[in-house]
Amino acid sequence: MAREFELINFLFEPLSKGLAKDEVGIGDDGAVLNVPENHQLVVVTDTLVSGVHFPETTSSYNVAWKSVAVNLSDLAAMGAKPGFYNLALTVPDNNHSWLTGFAKGLSDIGDLYSMPLVGGDTTNGPLTITVTAHGWLPKGKAVLRSGAKEGDVICVTNCIGDGALGLMVAQDNLPEPVKKQILFADCQYLLDALNVPHPQLGLSEELYSFANSAIDISDGLLADVSHILEESNKTAVAENDLLVAVINVDDIPLSKVAQLYIDNTEDWLSLLAGGDDYQLCFTVSPENINLAKKIAKQAGIEISEIGSIVSYDELDKSNVSKSETVNDRVVLLKDGCEFLVDGAKGYMHF
Amino acid sequence: MAREFELINFLFEPLSKGLAKDEVGIGDDGAVLNVPENHQLVVVTDTLVSGVHFPETTSSYNVAWKSVAVNLSDLAAMGAKPGFYNLALTVPDNNHSWLTGFAKGLSDIGDLYSMPLVGGDTTNGPLTITVTAHGWLPKGKAVLRSGAKEGDVICVTNCIGDGALGLMVAQDNLPEPVKKQILFADCQYLLDALNVPHPQLGLSEELYSFANSAIDISDGLLADVSHILEESNKTAVAENDLLVAVINVDDIPLSKVAQLYIDNTEDWLSLLAGGDDYQLCFTVSPENINLAKKIAKQAGIEISEIGSIVSYDELDKSNVSKSETVNDRVVLLKDGCEFLVDGAKGYMHF
Repeated sequence: MAREFELINFLFEPLSKGLAKDEVGIGDDGAVLNVPENHQLVVVTDTLVSGVHFPETTSSYNVAWKSVAVNLSDLAAMGAKPGFYNLALTVPDNNHSWLTGFAKGLSDIGDLYSMPLVGGDTTNGPLTITVTAHGWLPKGKAVLRSGAKEGDVICVTNCIGDGALGLMVAQDNLPEPVKKQILFADCQYLLDALNVPHPQLGLSEELYSFANSAIDISDGLLADVSHILEESNKTAVAENDLLVAVINVDDIPLSKVAQLYIDNTEDWLSLLAGGDDYQLCFTVSPENINLAKKIAKQAGIEISEIGSIVSYDELDKSNVSKSETVNDRVVLLKDGCEFLVDGAKGYMHF
Repeated sequence: MAREFELINFLFEPLSKGLAKDEVGIGDDGAVLNVPENHQLVVVTDTLVSGVHFPETTSSYNVAWKSVAVNLSDLAAMGAKPGFYNLALTVPDNNHSWLTGFAKGLSDIGDLYSMPLVGGDTTNGPLTITVTAHGWLPKGKAVLRSGAKEGDVICVTNCIGDGALGLMVAQDNLPEPVKKQILFADCQYLLDALNVPHPQLGLSEELYSFANSAIDISDGLLADVSHILEESNKTAVAENDLLVAVINVDDIPLSKVAQLYIDNTEDWLSLLAGGDDYQLCFTVSPENINLAKKIAKQAGIEISEIGSIVSYDELDKSNVSKSETVNDRVVLLKDGCEFLVDGAKGYMHF
């Protein structure tokens, strides 16, 4: 206990900076936080388990960064402004060098997004990190998964698939032809996409002004679009009212190195179902697409239109077979034809 | 993933009940919660690791109950009213019977204290449960560890040491003389104290009206009183201003079975440093002690005066040697004489 408190005091207490005088951070039974007027509280939780969510060789700096980043990405997808976070850290031992790197990772991402650490728990056990992040949004302005409408344009931010390729680099799993052509700098770029992702908070505070629904891409684009459909379809009464997503694979934004990977492998599955993107996927009604582009440009974020939300009924009138697709409710088109990606189920935790 | 979502939907989604229409629980990137006016938010986090914080044989029902209870106990110690909680559950496999028992434990304690589960994360790995609980308190009314004053009376709720004895029962570690005399019903009572503790929320909403400082007793009475002193002494400028706690061992409230244990063993260390009490320890100025007793009586909670907060300077004038005691800052008296408990450092996580 003495050592646990030392650790918390010396490494983590400085991360509590930025609180108001009448707020309480680390050091009591709980944190006490002020609440902005006319706002709602947004709470998100993500756990990273060593060997499951990141390779065991990942540096403690990167583990810390990513633990906070994945939660900020969830806040971004709700349209929330980051507030503060709690940390539950389970570590196998009291390794000061590991903990120092971990605290530095927390400090850097906390500073970048003005997120103080306000409390938590440090326990002994297999390496597991749970961050619960808190944000604020103007009352009633949450952007939910459930808001997708027929006719909506599906958009994503920046590039898709770099995190999944980063995992291949980390695990030395890149196919030989790609390995021969890839630059060292591109490997580093992919590893950074995997290990130190940047949540797309630049859009979040204005997300509600143009988006009908949103999700962050953590399980893989296909799975995450499915989640939007799943929630948006809960109010459907008849089968023909069900919403389906049609995505044009040719419109999916790829980095240069992801394009190199596709040119060599045609392995879209890894990029679309690999996960770890931490980009936003949102749907916008056509009349708001220009507003979305304008706001994204001001925020310095690229957005791409990759498809649309249609009704099952509409799909029926097209050339697309419904048999294979409706389970996933995501139809992929390439050169205008249906494109089947085997087992495109996204990341499976179990 | 599909199975993870099934699990969350079927077992955990019903636990989200009780939210308002404009609030969002499980099923999106994050939960969206309303905020009561003129209140502050209190956030607490506690992790339980299998084999570290509970024996591996503990039932999933009990693990679930305790995971929430220990956090509610922290809310109680801050004087906060429970709001809602998030759950990060890491499980080694997708065992439906285990998960069903776990969900029942969550459901029962959630219903008892009107705490909806609003979100979380389910991951695959060694059994680890992190609950982040949220409560509300009127602005500026938090009861902190740091508020103890010279002259304060130290009080505890109910009985001390039953949780520690419960662990002895669970691990079949009771000394032979006690084992021979203990009733089966008392063993069950002790196991319940360990596994299904009841947080002392009955006092929490009025705690600020009488208590200067408070903590919940999770690390053991001695360690937790030390935490109060540690925080309350941060503003001390000279050594003689430092606050010390003097506790009369004879005044510590014991259950019948704990008294039986002491009569046979005189092993106060296990009861005072064992932890897992989830009672409250608070300090009250003498003029408020009657108010405290009145409020506790109305809430059906026993409180006992077990000692007082004195200055180091005051201690100097007494018969108590300062050498051994000031490191821990807790002096134990028995029959008016100093009473040394070897290694009384509380529960050590590492």
